Amino acid sequence: MDEFALGCTLGFDVSAPAELVLQVAVASPATETLTAPVEVVELPGRQHLLRLAPGLVTVAYQATVRPPVSAPARVTEVDRIVALRPSRYCPSDRLAAFAAGEFGVGADPAGTVRAITAWVHERIAYQAGSSGPTTDAVDTLLGGAGVCRDYAHLVATLCRAVNVPARVAAVYAPGLSPMDFHLVVETAIDDHWYVWDATRLAPRPSLIRIATGRDAADTAFATTVSGALTMPEMTVTAVAPGNLPADDHVSLVALA
Amino acid sequence: MDEFALGCTLGFDVSAPAELVLQVAVASPATETLTAPVEVVELPGRQHLLRLAPGLVTVAYQATVRPPVSAPARVTEVDRIVALRPSRYCPSDRLAAFAAGEFGVGADPAGTVRAITAWVHERIAYQAGSSGPTTDAVDTLLGGAGVCRDYAHLVATLCRAVNVPARVAAVYAPGLSPMDFHLVVETAIDDHWYVWDATRLAPRPSLIRIATGRDAADTAFATTVSGALTMPEMTVTAVAPGNLPADDHVSLVALA
Amino acid sequence: MDEFALGCTLGFDVSAPAELVLQVAVASPATETLTAPVEVVELPGRQHLLRLAPGLVTVAYQATVRPPVSAPARVTEVDRIVALRPSRYCPSDRLAAFAAGEFGVGADPAGTVRAITAWVHERIAYQAGSSGPTTDAVDTLLGGAGVCRDYAHLVATLCRAVNVPARVAAVYAPGLSPMDFHLVVETAIDDHWYVWDATRLAPRPSLIRIATGRDAADTAFATTVSGALTMPEMTVTAVAPGNLPADDHVSLVALA
Amino acid sequence: MDEFALGCTLGFDVSAPAELVLQVAVASPATETLTAPVEVVELPGRQHLLRLAPGLVTVAYQATVRPPVSAPARVTEVDRIVALRPSRYCPSDRLAAFAAGEFGVGADPAGTVRAITAWVHERIAYQAGSSGPTTDAVDTLLGGAGVCRDYAHLVATLCRAVNVPARVAAVYAPGLSPMDFHLVVETAIDDHWYVWDATRLAPRPSLIRIATGRDAADTAFATTVSGALTMPEMTVTAVAPGNLPADDHVSLVALA
Repeated sequence: MDEFALGCTLGFDVSAPAELVLQVAVASPATETLTAPVEVVELPGRQHLLRLAPGLVTVAYQATVRPPVSAPARVTEVDRIVALRPSRYCPSDRLAAFAAGEFGVGADPAGTVRAITAWVHERIAYQAGSSGPTTDAVDTLLGGAGVCRDYAHLVATLCRAVNVPARVAAVYAPGLSPMDFHLVVETAIDDHWYVWDATRLAPRPSLIRIATGRDAADTAFATTVSGALTMPEMTVTAVAPGNLPADDHVSLVALA
Repeated sequence: MDEFALGCTLGFDVSAPAELVLQVAVASPATETLTAPVEVVELPGRQHLLRLAPGLVTVAYQATVRPPVSAPARVTEVDRIVALRPSRYCPSDRLAAFAAGEFGVGADPAGTVRAITAWVHERIAYQAGSSGPTTDAVDTLLGGAGVCRDYAHLVATLCRAVNVPARVAAVYAPGLSPMDFHLVVETAIDDHWYVWDATRLAPRPSLIRIATGRDAADTAFATTVSGALTMPEMTVTAVAPGNLPADDHVSLVALA
Repeated sequence: MDEFALGCTLGFDVSAPAELVLQVAVASPATETLTAPVEVVELPGRQHLLRLAPGLVTVAYQATVRPPVSAPARVTEVDRIVALRPSRYCPSDRLAAFAAGEFGVGADPAGTVRAITAWVHERIAYQAGSSGPTTDAVDTLLGGAGVCRDYAHLVATLCRAVNVPARVAAVYAPGLSPMDFHLVVETAIDDHWYVWDATRLAPRPSLIRIATGRDAADTAFATTVSGALTMPEMTVTAVAPGNLPADDHVSLVALA
Repeated sequence: MDEFALGCTLGFDVSAPAELVLQVAVASPATETLTAPVEVVELPGRQHLLRLAPGLVTVAYQATVRPPVSAPARVTEVDRIVALRPSRYCPSDRLAAFAAGEFGVGADPAGTVRAITAWVHERIAYQAGSSGPTTDAVDTLLGGAGVCRDYAHLVATLCRAVNVPARVAAVYAPGLSPMDFHLVVETAIDDHWYVWDATRLAPRPSLIRIATGRDAADTAFATTVSGALTMPEMTVTAVAPGNLPADDHVSLVALA
């Protein structure tokens, strides 16, 4: 096998007619299948809208991806401006002074981002169940524990707070254990986007992008737009061809 | 005169070389001038980027606009999905239960929005200086006072919390006193955008749109991207031709 | 049997030498036993301090209490002043405006407290696991769910916010199901303390007081002062003689 | 003069009949006068209750105090337990992990307190008007600015969070400029109370205690219990006999 095999199976229990938006599809698939028992509306940005009647529904996504050639993408002026704004889970305006005191507001964005990701890696304990859907980066900074979403939000928040543009990317992450959807950060350095993962739980060169946004509000793999449902079943697959690459989590790596 | 006369004069005192983004230009000007002593980079979305050296800088914008024919704009699926997400100053996920208890999650979005704007109008006291740049809709709900920004954030937050898509719009507001930039809300009703102003300080039919976004993080008239500056001088002009229209703040009005 | 039978068995797993303060003893026992495998230091206010070495420790408390004759206690000036202050989980200063808008700041404290407890009873859903140790009354107001601690905090906070002095009391609550320690509110009305329980899960006339304070920070049944431990086992007993009394949760009832 | 001369003049503008509690009186006056145009009720803990009719009211307090012989006071078990609890403006439970990560939870309370006060002194900027009555220690940690109240709250919070008992004391502070009421922290070290001031704006040996409590909710010099008033006039006097003592803000000093 010389391609990535990616995908997920999501089982929903719908209790009231629901609109569900999925973000599970990869950016540049070689092959791709989305299987669902209802009509799927494809929206811009690889979002899929499903209108679900009450009952049990299973949705499955499978894709293969050829190993990406990752040239760092250019940061547009508008991207840069948006990536400096505070967002729901990244209230960079609230902790600007703390971040400036801890990391400085300097001329070396790469060094600053390295210092921030190392600090978050050291200070935050990875702990399943320690956070919830309304947890923001301030909660994580104070509480000292979280999951990938919380690490990404705290890194992005601290970066924006010291004027380094930062956004998040939902990805398939070969090597992650237990396997799950993953959230990482991209920062603008010398006008290009580079990816960072303060959990250090999967190598960055084999991450495969699903969605890009300001924080988890933009990139959740499943968002209930209306109605009510639970998700009793979820399986994620992310297999890279060959051995996983090494990653020092310090060098500049671009997300394809 | 049968046109709107709109504009502003902004005086900045720059203490460290600064990048400043202005959002002051209207959507469909008949005539338009932006005067600044430095080069101005025009970005998509009518944003203007200025790179300022230390010292005093004055920027002036002037436009005329023909009376708009305001047919309500259609809400796309992607717009609708984004307009339901929580954002920095509109943490709709945090107060979902409160909003559902107070307003219900129902089948009549127009009635729900009317109830929300009337409630916010009654409960919140307009009070200059009662809020700051980090104030969010929860602060305003609890503290009971605010300015136009806070009214707009609280209305948008409560709407999203009960599944009514809501975004904000920065506008020129003829009739506002004291004159200033103004922030209002647009909600999706029957797949079209309609505008609401819980301050009820200016009639909606003569509002002129500047910028549209999730909350004030997207629509501020001036954002310091880097560097340091203060704004010792600010004058806003917004004059409508003829008498101002009446507004009951209950009927459906579209923002041009 | 014509006496109350009250008590608890608490099993601790101590991982680092710990100081533990228990507040489980009732105010006026007829008989009383505290069983622990280590020395117990009795502190003022019926607090018990235990110094625990690593390992498993079981502590048991048993008491009988004669049916109390509950004459309402007088409110001293100092009590009244303290009971108006905001506290950790009752930030009455943050939601003063919301409370005034919803309930008014009036001349009828009994009516105000009845309105507040009815509102909290209706708006908040009793839901085990919906809150945690750092949850405060604002979180509960917004999130719409909680357990007895959260109901008590929200009622006390809203009362203080409209100038009705309020404190909390930890109690044994015959009739509670599932049986557990319980937290209720006392408010000052006409210079006497009366008890309120917005959960309405146990009749107030048969509540037996353990501890009194500003909020759960003062009245927790077990507080780890230093060290580290978990509590894998906990059983609470609270049996009243004869049938449980009726309670309309509206009339004035004093806690003995 | 070989005595301290302390006092204040407070002018109130009462708009609705108000109950006001003052905490301005020192602990061990040589001479003392409280002048008010209405009856003053003296409450335990040197609190004074005034019932004020609408209009302008001036209250003046003057005292002399002999230079104190400051033997550190013993910390009782109950004091220690209360001084470890989170409180309204000192939510030590929220930032326990941050504090442990930054300062450790160790065996050397004096060293820990020195590290905390030095860190707060360095990281927080003294800035009049940067905080308000609802500002808590988390806000100050994030926002990086405050006044004496905020410094005291942040120090007390960080101390409690790493298991060092801490309380606050309102004091007259000779040498403070501009002169005002002052708030400092006392921590329990080797079973005695020692005083700390991270603002470093006045020498600790000549501080004169007014009130002691968990945070500013307990120690405010003026608290409106009911009614409505503003305070258009306030003058504080605090003069020490002879030269002010030196203070390295590192050694152990007891507050008399």
